[in-house]
Amino acid sequence: MTTSLLEQLIDALRVLPGVGQKSAQRMAYHLLERQREGGKRLSGALAEAMERIGHCERCRDFSETDVCPTCASSARDAHLLCVVESPADRLAIEQATGFRGLYYVLQGRLSPLDGIGPRELGLDRLAQRLEEGEVQELIVATNPTVEGEATAHYLAQLARARSVHPSRLAHGVPLGGELEYVDRGTLSHAFGSRSEIP
Amino acid sequence: MTTSLLEQLIDALRVLPGVGQKSAQRMAYHLLERQREGGKRLSGALAEAMERIGHCERCRDFSETDVCPTCASSARDAHLLCVVESPADRLAIEQATGFRGLYYVLQGRLSPLDGIGPRELGLDRLAQRLEEGEVQELIVATNPTVEGEATAHYLAQLARARSVHPSRLAHGVPLGGELEYVDRGTLSHAFGSRSEIP
Ligand SMILES: [Zn+2]
Ligand SMILES: [Zn+2]
Repeated sequence: MTTSLLEQLIDALRVLPGVGQKSAQRMAYHLLERQREGGKRLSGALAEAMERIGHCERCRDFSETDVCPTCASSARDAHLLCVVESPADRLAIEQATGFRGLYYVLQGRLSPLDGIGPRELGLDRLAQRLEEGEVQELIVATNPTVEGEATAHYLAQLARARSVHPSRLAHGVPLGGELEYVDRGTLSHAFGSRSEIP
Repeated sequence: MTTSLLEQLIDALRVLPGVGQKSAQRMAYHLLERQREGGKRLSGALAEAMERIGHCERCRDFSETDVCPTCASSARDAHLLCVVESPADRLAIEQATGFRGLYYVLQGRLSPLDGIGPRELGLDRLAQRLEEGEVQELIVATNPTVEGEATAHYLAQLARARSVHPSRLAHGVPLGGELEYVDRGTLSHAFGSRSEIP
């Protein structure tokens, strides 16, 4: 017995985070009843994004070009490099603060038990970049979790060994929280009061 | 300045009910980081569904064929016709109860102030169907709201005038609630204890 297009749509919607059977049904009916054009637009945007968005070869953030617009911009201050765990964290900082330096996106955090070491986070390439001498301050904006702190510690050593000043966000970010969900004001304040890692 | 594919995707995701900017960002990153195949599958399912799902000419429910599988089935009891406001309500009843009759989906409820009268709900075609004589009981399963009750009253008169017994779901469905969100047990009980509209 083949499943109907409606059932296929409901099933496919469950790929979205936080969307269970009931929500998926509600979404499918909503689109069919009131948003057919929006549904078609979403279909196109999904296909394009899944196919064409890769990673920037400089900062590892998502990018549809080899080098992302931020890394390619001459208006950014290349002396400041901010390291974040995820593209969502990068976006949160970019939206909340006036930061005009560059970013480095780990796409994860050190987690030896899960087999995620320095290599998986591209830290060999980051080290190489720090050796080039342009970066003067490495702003470590990993999450205030156990693994995030361990990653921050590793990054600070990596920077110091190459005469780059490591710094981290000021207290103000709630402990145990996820950077992505911190309100803009708090995040902006914490970013502005970052301190050198002693 | 053109927007990036990522921004386009985030914007397009906001067409989904209950999805704001923050949720849309989270969804987009989740798909890009962990569910590219699922994202492509969703794109295809959306395109197919938006393009090919229309309405059954018998019951007005969503259908990808002229007549939906339920209306076309010889295994359903054509003496029982259950009227619901929406496809979601129809699905809720089908999933919660052992009902083996047929459905009629109003795709709305009587709402004179919004210009929704009997004609907009296809009640002329429903009346015609009742006159054909096959339907013996019209189970009115509109929502227990003011407009839903008014619609139920109208449908009961429509049925009686054509010697069809109108009935409605038993008390048990919470007043002011939406049928779609009632738990299965309550809905199944209410459906089983439906009473004739006096
Ligand atoms: Zn980049
Ligand atoms: Zn049908």
